Amino acid sequence: MRQPSTPTPPPSDRVRVRRKPDRGRYDRATIDAILDEAVIGHVGYVIDGQPYVTPTSIWRTGDRLYWHGSSASRMLRATKDGAPVCVTASLLDGLVLARSGFDHSVNYRSVMVLGRAHAVEEEAEALAALEAFVEHLYPGRWAKLRPPTRQELKATSVLWMDLDEASAKVRADGVHDEPGDETWPVWAGVVPVALAAGAPEPDEFVPDAMEEPGYVRRRGGRLTGPAD
Amino acid sequence: MRQPSTPTPPPSDRVRVRRKPDRGRYDRATIDAILDEAVIGHVGYVIDGQPYVTPTSIWRTGDRLYWHGSSASRMLRATKDGAPVCVTASLLDGLVLARSGFDHSVNYRSVMVLGRAHAVEEEAEALAALEAFVEHLYPGRWAKLRPPTRQELKATSVLWMDLDEASAKVRADGVHDEPGDETWPVWAGVVPVALAAGAPEPDEFVPDAMEEPGYVRRRGGRLTGPAD
Repeated sequence: MRQPSTPTPPPSDRVRVRRKPDRGRYDRATIDAILDEAVIGHVGYVIDGQPYVTPTSIWRTGDRLYWHGSSASRMLRATKDGAPVCVTASLLDGLVLARSGFDHSVNYRSVMVLGRAHAVEEEAEALAALEAFVEHLYPGRWAKLRPPTRQELKATSVLWMDLDEASAKVRADGVHDEPGDETWPVWAGVVPVALAAGAPEPDEFVPDAMEEPGYVRRRGGRLTGPAD
Repeated sequence: MRQPSTPTPPPSDRVRVRRKPDRGRYDRATIDAILDEAVIGHVGYVIDGQPYVTPTSIWRTGDRLYWHGSSASRMLRATKDGAPVCVTASLLDGLVLARSGFDHSVNYRSVMVLGRAHAVEEEAEALAALEAFVEHLYPGRWAKLRPPTRQELKATSVLWMDLDEASAKVRADGVHDEPGDETWPVWAGVVPVALAAGAPEPDEFVPDAMEEPGYVRRRGGRLTGPAD
């Protein structure tokens, strides 16, 4: 499904990680993996000088990042015509408890993508993008669903942006205390955290004999499960 | 610790939830609960017309939302002097699998706060804010830490914004199929998800005899644990 990624050019000054530059990552493998794991992205856009940040589902196909929504939504209306946007996806991986307040941190992986958003104009292309979205979260599900109607397609806008101006930032590390703090008598370490899925809850119309699909049994597919 | 909240005035047109207005919540109890559970917020700001969205730790004290960072960071430099910002916090609660692609959804709770960001100018006030940050995540920890130095304080900027222009959006529901879709032969339901904490990992300097604090034993304090 997933198309092969192309190499990324050197980062633009706008996305280069300046603070903690050792945490910056610019390779597409890292960027893609974070975008593919994130269920939700945060879309930043500007209306009358005011920034807005809207959380929404994102998915990637090849060199494009997609999101969608009602054709009537403010976010979609504000971003569809080549407006500058920033989509940020972040995954919290751990709480880092140090021996001084200032050395506390979190482990995380995040991606920031800058660029311009475009609406998918062709209906067939929008349909293919929405299929990729469902298949990304739930492999094999699209073909089993009640097919979309023209009306549903018309009410939905699909947006995309190029991934050519993107960077990742990663902290995956332990405690970094100031020299001398190590003996301070307080617990220090990492509490790992992850998005975990609980037991699936079938709705009232699912027949008793119907088996849960594998992506549901696997606790939401690509979501990280709790330590088993 | 947490100061009592004041009532919220009617939402401004900028934060009123237009899409799916039934999901809009404007009471401070709902808004505060979401902000208090979110470890990370996404701060939106504008530089030269380009929106940026930076993920960062957020915390609330009374009617103010706080975040912090290196005094040298682009995000802090761009937001500290009364610049318009948007801070959005979102919590993913579930994946909703319907019988048509278009009725798939997610359960979530999110808050969007619009306003202007200000830097905390007084050192004592910044120190109190950082104490509140640590205590929010790890109640009782601040007093046990190696106290901050002047240099650490100088290198850190604390920012805040008022919560007077904020709204929440909540979906906490099951599958909503189109009438007639209920009998379509595909599994449908909700997969609950939550940020869950794993076993704490003490660093190499923690003495064997040292007990983990309660907030670590409780799997990261206020983080939602996996279903026990």
